[in-house]
Amino acid sequence: MFFKVSKRELLNGLNIVSRAISNYSPLPAFSGIKFNVNETDICLMASDSDISIKTYLSARDEYHLEIIRTGSIVIEAKYILDIVRKMDTDIIEIEVADGCNVKISDENSEFNIIGMYANEYPLIDFDKSEDFFTIGSTELKKIINQTIFATSDKDTRPYLNGINFFIDGDNVECTATDSYRLAKTSFKINKSFNYNIIIPAKSLNELMKSLDEDKEIEVYLSNKKVLFIVDNTTIQTRLIDGKFPDTKQLIPESFAYELQLDIRDILGSIDRVSFIKNDGVNIIKLDLNSEESILSSKSQDIGSAIETLRTAQFTGDNLSISFNGRYVFEAIKAINSSTIVFKFSGEMKPFIIQGVEDDKVLQLVLPVRTYL
Amino acid sequence: MFFKVSKRELLNGLNIVSRAISNYSPLPAFSGIKFNVNETDICLMASDSDISIKTYLSARDEYHLEIIRTGSIVIEAKYILDIVRKMDTDIIEIEVADGCNVKISDENSEFNIIGMYANEYPLIDFDKSEDFFTIGSTELKKIINQTIFATSDKDTRPYLNGINFFIDGDNVECTATDSYRLAKTSFKINKSFNYNIIIPAKSLNELMKSLDEDKEIEVYLSNKKVLFIVDNTTIQTRLIDGKFPDTKQLIPESFAYELQLDIRDILGSIDRVSFIKNDGVNIIKLDLNSEESILSSKSQDIGSAIETLRTAQFTGDNLSISFNGRYVFEAIKAINSSTIVFKFSGEMKPFIIQGVEDDKVLQLVLPVRTYL
Repeated sequence: MFFKVSKRELLNGLNIVSRAISNYSPLPAFSGIKFNVNETDICLMASDSDISIKTYLSARDEYHLEIIRTGSIVIEAKYILDIVRKMDTDIIEIEVADGCNVKISDENSEFNIIGMYANEYPLIDFDKSEDFFTIGSTELKKIINQTIFATSDKDTRPYLNGINFFIDGDNVECTATDSYRLAKTSFKINKSFNYNIIIPAKSLNELMKSLDEDKEIEVYLSNKKVLFIVDNTTIQTRLIDGKFPDTKQLIPESFAYELQLDIRDILGSIDRVSFIKNDGVNIIKLDLNSEESILSSKSQDIGSAIETLRTAQFTGDNLSISFNGRYVFEAIKAINSSTIVFKFSGEMKPFIIQGVEDDKVLQLVLPVRTYL
Repeated sequence: MFFKVSKRELLNGLNIVSRAISNYSPLPAFSGIKFNVNETDICLMASDSDISIKTYLSARDEYHLEIIRTGSIVIEAKYILDIVRKMDTDIIEIEVADGCNVKISDENSEFNIIGMYANEYPLIDFDKSEDFFTIGSTELKKIINQTIFATSDKDTRPYLNGINFFIDGDNVECTATDSYRLAKTSFKINKSFNYNIIIPAKSLNELMKSLDEDKEIEVYLSNKKVLFIVDNTTIQTRLIDGKFPDTKQLIPESFAYELQLDIRDILGSIDRVSFIKNDGVNIIKLDLNSEESILSSKSQDIGSAIETLRTAQFTGDNLSISFNGRYVFEAIKAINSSTIVFKFSGEMKPFIIQGVEDDKVLQLVLPVRTYL
């Protein structure tokens, strides 16, 4: 294996695939990046078995690619990234000299790194299914951002550790819940399928980091894995086994109380009182009546805080309701609307939060019982 | 205690004094900020016993200060900072209602925090000596930056944990060493004193963070503590007990070898090979002769790196010398010169590094023996 390539493009490719590498991978090979050099292009690949990323450096002009000898090798990601990033040159040469010794060089610098044989790297299959749709990366990011925070990070119910994509015809419903709160949104696709899959939150987080520009993404569906293809890059994630709970019956349909207010007003108030914690949790109480809407929080050790919600417009009988401040803060942050509305059906009933200007996103939070 | 004050100025004052607060302070009171409200001004103060900072909010226009009732209280720094930072108002009211309950409020928000009685806070004496000189903050920062990295962070010899200020007449010599390397610079003052003191590196680091603008600083000297006064703020640090070693005899006076080169050339090369470590230390070897200057590093586990120093001009017999890469990198970074010179007297003798355009700063590094 021996090739020359643009430093900038190589570094870019290495940065893309290295996102798949986990610090906690059980398999030593997964700390490396696999180089596969063909007659016409170079494939870089990395994986942690849950998520796998490959990208191609091809014979396009800007790559300044010159392939002298084909072959493959695995190089420790942290070393190759550090070396390539710091090299002060336009063109880098990489050569596997004897065995698995890799020489990385330019005019003034020469690095000799001990690599790993490519056949010791696990076989990763990037086969695509026939079912795919396209979506803009900005829209996909928005959908993920509006729901991902509500996924569970506990190990007890793995099927809550991802976002459920329920595809029924051309309608895709995305739902995440950790059983204390739920976030839901939907979008239309230009095809028609039936899938009910759970994509791991961890993979979607890595996917989002890879989507900096606004680009068309091809999403290939199957019941085992999903592939996202953007330009030269394929990001593949396994799916979570298990059945996502049916959440429809959780969402109340009629509401006796409604609180409408400015999004900055409520976010500012929750943020200010968030330092008041009991056992690490910030519990917030809303006292609502036709005269005034008061948000408060207190703790024996720290003290108390009282906020008047200036922009609040409340309809319904007097209501006092308590909830986890962080859950409601994150739910509201995911709503893209300058005015939001809380809809309550009772002190101990789940309540929903929606945007007045955009009601596609639905946020649901369970209240908590307090004795304060 | 009851006053109103500009939110912006209060936050600024709290940010200044909170730099003295250490997360590891043994005394609970030291996690608080002491408010002392007089007829005409407010003094904010914080300390971790090594370093103490006080600042005044006075009756200047921009403070919008209105003192209704004098008094004093100690408020947990993290709470008061968090509250004041997030409050959405121009003017903040702070009142000690009953006992040590502190009410912080504006039109829409009210926080009730449990404070500490001011008489439970240790007495910190900010008395100034008569000996003082003035220095610009930019110059003081430069002097500290050129030496502080060479101080020791080990507990075994406390007198190496600071910078030695040796004041002989109007000349101030600043020296730091951890016994493997040494950094030295000097400056002139507009007075004449005799002091030989060691200022803790930790205090100087905090001092530097407080010096953002270019301002005149008054430095008050004594054999127990040093005070730095900028505008309304006093930063006081204790000194380190013990005698700083006499380092004069360590510095060689004649040199048989000289290597002159571009600062970016050598910094780039050291940076590129720095990932090659043996037991966590990056050992670098220089092979110097009249033909070429080669920098290299190797490790059994990782591999090797070889760099040709393009801009090197070497005079002397052939020389091979090895050293800790980080020590030399930090030493060079502290030199303000585009061309630097290494002066060697032998393979196992300490060598010095200086700037060609600025020879006030002297960096000394001990070589290491290697069997690679």
